Amino acid sequence: MTQDYFDRFFAGETLAASRLMSVVEAGGEEGEEVLNRLFPKVGSAYRIGVTGFTGAGKSTLVDAVSRRYRDAKKSVGVIAEDPSSPFTGGAILGDRVRMQQASDDGVFIRSIASRGSETGLSACATELADVLDAFGRDIIFLETIGIGQLEYRIRHIAHTTCVVVTPDAGDDVQSLKSGLMEVGEIFVVNKADRENAKRYADDLRSMIELRANSDWLPPVVETAGTSGEGIDELHDAIERHREYLSHDGRLEAKRAEALRNRMTLVADERLRKLFWENDYIRKKLDGMVDLVTAGKKSPYEAAREILEPFAINSRK
Amino acid sequence: MTQDYFDRFFAGETLAASRLMSVVEAGGEEGEEVLNRLFPKVGSAYRIGVTGFTGAGKSTLVDAVSRRYRDAKKSVGVIAEDPSSPFTGGAILGDRVRMQQASDDGVFIRSIASRGSETGLSACATELADVLDAFGRDIIFLETIGIGQLEYRIRHIAHTTCVVVTPDAGDDVQSLKSGLMEVGEIFVVNKADRENAKRYADDLRSMIELRANSDWLPPVVETAGTSGEGIDELHDAIERHREYLSHDGRLEAKRAEALRNRMTLVADERLRKLFWENDYIRKKLDGMVDLVTAGKKSPYEAAREILEPFAINSRK
Repeated sequence: MTQDYFDRFFAGETLAASRLMSVVEAGGEEGEEVLNRLFPKVGSAYRIGVTGFTGAGKSTLVDAVSRRYRDAKKSVGVIAEDPSSPFTGGAILGDRVRMQQASDDGVFIRSIASRGSETGLSACATELADVLDAFGRDIIFLETIGIGQLEYRIRHIAHTTCVVVTPDAGDDVQSLKSGLMEVGEIFVVNKADRENAKRYADDLRSMIELRANSDWLPPVVETAGTSGEGIDELHDAIERHREYLSHDGRLEAKRAEALRNRMTLVADERLRKLFWENDYIRKKLDGMVDLVTAGKKSPYEAAREILEPFAINSRK
Repeated sequence: MTQDYFDRFFAGETLAASRLMSVVEAGGEEGEEVLNRLFPKVGSAYRIGVTGFTGAGKSTLVDAVSRRYRDAKKSVGVIAEDPSSPFTGGAILGDRVRMQQASDDGVFIRSIASRGSETGLSACATELADVLDAFGRDIIFLETIGIGQLEYRIRHIAHTTCVVVTPDAGDDVQSLKSGLMEVGEIFVVNKADRENAKRYADDLRSMIELRANSDWLPPVVETAGTSGEGIDELHDAIERHREYLSHDGRLEAKRAEALRNRMTLVADERLRKLFWENDYIRKKLDGMVDLVTAGKKSPYEAAREILEPFAINSRK
């Protein structure tokens, strides 16, 4: 990366930001160099996580709330995970592309495909958010798909986490995954025009009250993304949570926790890479597969033996 | 674990099997001892994975196909992941409990809660299946929730993997997660009485044909779990896949791959535990958090330094 790119980036050139994001997304040493370089400028953006299943209407909501922030002259960035297409391996952009084309310069949208390693995915979203943060965006939305264990991580990548749900007829709040319940600081019942949405939202409020274990009681906002219903309430709820975090060192504590989490993820991924890509370990594993397949060892005994050469040298 | 328990287990006593499964589920050294002890008897059961989102009707399908196997005098075991209840932290058993009570001795059902670590979850399902395998069950169903990255792992825990989908109005096959597409050896379009199910099944067939890259072309079976429609076809599809695997060393290759995967998972989990629970590493991480929070190091530089004391000693 030449200095020229960084100069253009810090001068606010959108194309340079896109280019640096691509380098970061590609990973490797060059990506890391970019992130190290930008890190001193990271930390002033407010990050809003929006999670929920595919089809919950996250992008329409993000688009609508973004406009509120734009009205208040805030610049906005969006990092959106899209489910990978089984055909192309790429992201299904669809409406997102059209929305991006229609949007003003004050909104920067980046889609990332949600394939890749378990740790790689959300790490990449955070890193791209770092780029937008250093780029000077005031508000950054992180749109993630609430599947698997990843939702636990959104807690560490956003300041305010919104969980978007769309109840189908017959849906019961008890079927909400407990991971999603735990990360939500704001709950959004979207497509509130559907038949049982009101009852679902009420049930959700009762459940949240029962579970309440901090000073912040997560509000439940009812929205209809397409008609714009509830968008002001959602924006206000986000701002209330932001205000809440600004007291008693809560934001600082959250930031430190997020940094610890990030370092742990990065180090953990490297640890596994160093270990499993080591020639000696690979040969050892091959030998064990033969012994286990032949029934001479159990997989658990074999796993213990694979770990034997591993050591932590506290004198280094 | 006393010898008495193992004697009763190998004599076919259901209560002893339940007890050994609880010990395995609790993990730790005692659990590992049980698995080591049973390992020589593991390997004769045929394992059928059934994956799909919560509410897709997996348990009703498994119940119905189980009955076909019972009619053929095969003994059956079921390991079912249930989503954790946000209230109790335990599994939502519901219908499952009722079904279990009604079922005969030839079907052994065990539910496990789907909380826990990313690797712990499916590892536990496999280990419980090993217990049922050593217990002499002919057919073992592994019911898993198709969320997150875990579906990639079902490939290694079952001989035949069935992916169950229930198209809602407006659903498009392209929205099917590519992970699910990759693991499916049989696709089941359940609740085939719904309006757009036929079209969805046809689209799925076309997509599968386009993606076909092996001798096995995954069939798409349309079922209505409640009325019993399509159950014979599903049973036959499973048996055809079993027959397919019995040739050209396919089953043996699959078994070796599964054992390699298991060892890797077990060793990987231990590697991370050894590393991150090491006092020296924890102190090092704490120190780095302070430096990073103060802006003196980037999280990436810090991660590199945390890994410094890590070594692989090839002379051991």
